[in-house]
Amino acid sequence: MSDLSRLFAPERVAVVGATDREGSVGRAVMTNLLSAFDGEVVPVNPTYETLFDLPCHDSVRDAEADLVVVVVPPKLAVDVVREAGECGVSAVVVITAGFGEAGGEGVARERELAAVAAEYDIDLVGPNSLGVLSTRSDLNATFGPRGALPGDVSFMSQSGAFVTAVLDWAAERGLGFVDIVSLGNEAVLDESAFVEFWGDDPETEVVLGYLEGIKDGERFVRVASEVTRETPVVLVKSGRTEAGAHAAASHTGSIAGSEAAYEAGLEKAGVIRAHSVEELFDYASVLAGQPLPDGDGVAVVTNAGGPGVMATDAVGDSDLDLASFTGETVEALRDVLPANANVYNPIDVIGDAPVERFLAALDVALSDPNVGAAVVMSCPTQTLSFDDLADAVVERGEEHGKPLAACLMGGASTESAERTLAEAGIPCYFDPARAVRALDALRTYRERRETERVEPEEFDVDRERARAVLARAADRGETRLGVEAMGLLEAYGIPIPTGEVVDSPAAAERVAREITGEVVMKIVSPDILHKSDIGGVAVGVEQADVRDTYEDLVSRARRYQPDATLLGVQVQERLDTSAGVETIVGTNRDPQFGPLVLFGLGGVFVEVLQDTTVRLAPVAEREAQSMLDDIQAAPLLRGARGRDPVDEASVVETVQRLSQLVTDFPAILELDVNPLLVSPEGATAVDVRLTIDPDELEGTDAAGGGRTADADTDAATHGGERR
Amino acid sequence: MSDLSRLFAPERVAVVGATDREGSVGRAVMTNLLSAFDGEVVPVNPTYETLFDLPCHDSVRDAEADLVVVVVPPKLAVDVVREAGECGVSAVVVITAGFGEAGGEGVARERELAAVAAEYDIDLVGPNSLGVLSTRSDLNATFGPRGALPGDVSFMSQSGAFVTAVLDWAAERGLGFVDIVSLGNEAVLDESAFVEFWGDDPETEVVLGYLEGIKDGERFVRVASEVTRETPVVLVKSGRTEAGAHAAASHTGSIAGSEAAYEAGLEKAGVIRAHSVEELFDYASVLAGQPLPDGDGVAVVTNAGGPGVMATDAVGDSDLDLASFTGETVEALRDVLPANANVYNPIDVIGDAPVERFLAALDVALSDPNVGAAVVMSCPTQTLSFDDLADAVVERGEEHGKPLAACLMGGASTESAERTLAEAGIPCYFDPARAVRALDALRTYRERRETERVEPEEFDVDRERARAVLARAADRGETRLGVEAMGLLEAYGIPIPTGEVVDSPAAAERVAREITGEVVMKIVSPDILHKSDIGGVAVGVEQADVRDTYEDLVSRARRYQPDATLLGVQVQERLDTSAGVETIVGTNRDPQFGPLVLFGLGGVFVEVLQDTTVRLAPVAEREAQSMLDDIQAAPLLRGARGRDPVDEASVVETVQRLSQLVTDFPAILELDVNPLLVSPEGATAVDVRLTIDPDELEGTDAAGGGRTADADTDAATHGGERR
Repeated sequence: MSDLSRLFAPERVAVVGATDREGSVGRAVMTNLLSAFDGEVVPVNPTYETLFDLPCHDSVRDAEADLVVVVVPPKLAVDVVREAGECGVSAVVVITAGFGEAGGEGVARERELAAVAAEYDIDLVGPNSLGVLSTRSDLNATFGPRGALPGDVSFMSQSGAFVTAVLDWAAERGLGFVDIVSLGNEAVLDESAFVEFWGDDPETEVVLGYLEGIKDGERFVRVASEVTRETPVVLVKSGRTEAGAHAAASHTGSIAGSEAAYEAGLEKAGVIRAHSVEELFDYASVLAGQPLPDGDGVAVVTNAGGPGVMATDAVGDSDLDLASFTGETVEALRDVLPANANVYNPIDVIGDAPVERFLAALDVALSDPNVGAAVVMSCPTQTLSFDDLADAVVERGEEHGKPLAACLMGGASTESAERTLAEAGIPCYFDPARAVRALDALRTYRERRETERVEPEEFDVDRERARAVLARAADRGETRLGVEAMGLLEAYGIPIPTGEVVDSPAAAERVAREITGEVVMKIVSPDILHKSDIGGVAVGVEQADVRDTYEDLVSRARRYQPDATLLGVQVQERLDTSAGVETIVGTNRDPQFGPLVLFGLGGVFVEVLQDTTVRLAPVAEREAQSMLDDIQAAPLLRGARGRDPVDEASVVETVQRLSQLVTDFPAILELDVNPLLVSPEGATAVDVRLTIDPDELEGTDAAGGGRTADADTDAATHGGERR
Repeated sequence: MSDLSRLFAPERVAVVGATDREGSVGRAVMTNLLSAFDGEVVPVNPTYETLFDLPCHDSVRDAEADLVVVVVPPKLAVDVVREAGECGVSAVVVITAGFGEAGGEGVARERELAAVAAEYDIDLVGPNSLGVLSTRSDLNATFGPRGALPGDVSFMSQSGAFVTAVLDWAAERGLGFVDIVSLGNEAVLDESAFVEFWGDDPETEVVLGYLEGIKDGERFVRVASEVTRETPVVLVKSGRTEAGAHAAASHTGSIAGSEAAYEAGLEKAGVIRAHSVEELFDYASVLAGQPLPDGDGVAVVTNAGGPGVMATDAVGDSDLDLASFTGETVEALRDVLPANANVYNPIDVIGDAPVERFLAALDVALSDPNVGAAVVMSCPTQTLSFDDLADAVVERGEEHGKPLAACLMGGASTESAERTLAEAGIPCYFDPARAVRALDALRTYRERRETERVEPEEFDVDRERARAVLARAADRGETRLGVEAMGLLEAYGIPIPTGEVVDSPAAAERVAREITGEVVMKIVSPDILHKSDIGGVAVGVEQADVRDTYEDLVSRARRYQPDATLLGVQVQERLDTSAGVETIVGTNRDPQFGPLVLFGLGGVFVEVLQDTTVRLAPVAEREAQSMLDDIQAAPLLRGARGRDPVDEASVVETVQRLSQLVTDFPAILELDVNPLLVSPEGATAVDVRLTIDPDELEGTDAAGGGRTADADTDAATHGGERR
């Protein structure tokens, strides 16, 4: 990634299309730049000799600028960028609209713009951008109505209008920024580029974004998971509910479209997701201003009981806990507080508390090892000034190095105290719930940061055999596969029942003889979707009946669906399903984030309750384990209702192996193992369905050479010794 | 209920304990009263001749006041109230603390206070109250630091400190009130009294409350469900999560303690529950200021796409819908908007929109029959003044009579526009989510108001037989009953399997002969909790084996638990459980709200997923039906996974009949029918457990006379002809 500091801290900015025409974008950009910029501003427009008392240049070639802002009409914009590239400019902001968003020739124009930027290695923002803004050099290269105060947060937005709204709003609240970029159409630089740049930027303490989509999800996750180890990233990703309406692609109806992918992707990237504008900036303030808590216990110190209860509720609603004080803490509180005070959490210092009593209690609480953070709350009383309390809280926060939030429950009388707290980075709200949510954001970030980023395990698998299974289907022109593809799972070390797909009664008898007890037999055909409906499944077949059953299944299939391609009959050991729990593991492919892996309990839990969880592949062991934790019905795997706990490790490994399979083969568009039967003895894939894209199967021919003799059936033996 | 207007609009207020001592409560109350009160203020204190230039009286007897405020020390307070009562005062506010909240003799003192109030029919607020306040007559009879602005909301609080916080905060925002009361210890007047009074008060448009508990839940529900037909009631009920920690009483672990009762009670009362202080006042403003929507469709009109998406998400998160416009609306929008505008919802009038274009779009949207409400959003632009937009929005709102909310997404530049909107009662926030939540509160209130309050059906039941079953157990000194009490269900018309509890092998054979096919036999003993564990249950017993099985069950029971009382053996028809769905219906009794009824799917759905729902008894048909709708796994009852839908009406009726049973018999503390087997043919109670309080069983002896011959077993025949 190139160094985007050229965009935010240039020395000489050219405005191509500058003008002084009232109401024009060119005038607005010039005015904003001239209002404060530390460097030089160079207007470019062949129509003028001078503009704003500055000499006006005819062409960007004469401007000798290191940042070029383009506001010319769309037809001229690409040429301007090319000229800029030709004379070595490497940072360009295209404010001009009329590109991809306009459709038609705009789309081609945007492609051309991207090509020119690539040719000259230009860091290009836009087109269709409000511009960029940085307080590093008091740069305001936007056509918006106001600039930004300096601060320690950088902000990107896919909505230019939202940037103007935020600037106006932040100015009133004294919120400051390092850099702001209106991303526009993202022909070149996208959200990942800015996350990466700000992650390395010592000035930026928190990265904020308003996004409606992420262009390259896989890259974003790669970049952001590095950045979020050091710098918190908080995003509003909107279009959540619209996205949810896109129907699930998987036939189980379980992967709920791309919103699930965004949720999984942002979590994997370590990003904190805000669900409203208020949360976005509340989280930004607290993350920039407060240390991370070293524990989840919260102490509440209040001078009024009712608000203390509200704060307790808010803690209960969050992922934080109300801290349990040590005996020493309780004793110490008794020493510093009057007899009618409450020395247990929430601490009630009583309405007549002067600031000294408040602070004595706060000191004791913050010294308790079970306390990771504290909320200080005060209603208006005659014995306490909000200002004094704020000063003292700031001091105590610094001393103890633990994060604090305040609830000063009043109106105008709290204003200067709030300012004092804000300057010290301590969040202060009337509503206790909001103060607690701010502390909870710190906990979330600590958790995200501490999450180990381990590379997923690479299991030793038989990749060539898996490729052969896919290649055979591709050669037959098939895109939907069923049990005939069980070998795919076996090749990746996922246990399957003993059995095989055979194409003769004799072979069926041979396979059945290798199995103890009754067998299950199923017709195998890509064209017959509902095998049971046509009598294509026989359960509990005795050895003696295998031959007849074979004939019977085949003749039923021929009768009911004469045009179906019959691949044979699967002969499989009969599993005792009552001894285990039916689960489902599946994958599909998201256009932005690539392969997703789904896990859930089978049957009613998927179909009615949609109790499933999704991760981005590849899935590491910790992530696979966390999928089990996510499921509401997880206790059923863990010995609820008198069952023995299942072998969780085998489930975790199956999820990882499946993840490796779909990561290795982009040709697998969707795949469901349903059911994956899980018991105390392990996990077994009982059935599989998948959809493939033969065009994605690279090297098919090479692998095709390794095909087994029975070319029309795939080996599905238990031992895995065949290939 | 007496008319509480004497509390809020008195003509002459005596302050008993008045003083001018700096920092005293008596001085604060005097100062507040003298600052604005329309009527006369009379200080009472034998130590002074005059106070604040007013003649000071020796006793409340001389004061001739119609409201008495008591601030004397606790030991004197009861006598003062008695004196006030003796001279005909009927409204008293006891600010003095040191009563129930102090424990010890304070508890007795509070009882005495209540007795005096009852004797003289005094409407008494407190003790331990901040006081009362009303803008009707500019009365501020509190010792808080500030008064209230006039408005149309009345507010009660169980936290006095929270009243001071709210007053300070509301003053800054220009929020006004009718009456405010700090409820204190509620020795006499409680939340129900004020809800009732404000419900009849033409000045009060919305009732707000901060409550930590409700003293008499049953009365509250009765009162509030009347009031909320005309006047919205919004409450913060805190202590939610603490309450949740109180362990469930029912052995199924399903009724989650009194928080479930509050939730059910407040819903039954038609109360809107706010979960934070912000919500409390946001809902108050919109309910006071805006008409109710006649439909759930919301139109969004915005001058920026990004914020439009945020509002769409917020609508998706709410119970509102994004309105689908009619073809006429879309056409009309095309006429008034430029070509690049979005004429579908959310309507984007484009960043260069002047106010006229905005309003043209709003007019069209509000004329659409599918639009019940609208959100108007604007980012700062050069073509639009927030002030003009606000003026025009107010005008349009009045014209169309549909509720509106605004998002003016800016800072200081929106201030005067926000004021304009606030004066017209139109909520305005930066955050689209908050604006949409305000509209959603209107929808919730409309729904609550429209919900029919029907009296629960009274089924024709055999109440005497039920009483006899309970009486027999009570006579035996038992408090925990099992299958021997199936007759209780049958008496209330709840279907049970054919069968009977018998006490001889011969009787067992007789009962088995009346049943077709195999039978289920179970030992019946109040002392054996886990019958299966000692081999006390036999399933699938052939007719020929009934006699032996009887002996076998009894001898096992004698062997494993020699001291257990054996009531006999239950012989019951064997039901095909696979033909139905196992559900659970249960009840327990909440100390505040009385009997609760629980419904859920059985087995894993209760034990692992806790997928249950609770209502206050008595449950009307509509409510019982809504319990089915509440369950996540409800689709399993309605034909998911290829099953036939069950007979929902029979489930609904069973819930109602059980509700009638526990309402009729306060002696039933807990009762669970588990499982209630539900199939397309109906509902059958397979097993029952209950706990009774014999002391609550009135008329037991009278009913005892009707006991059946086999005094030690309860009839559990199918026909119900015995009693």
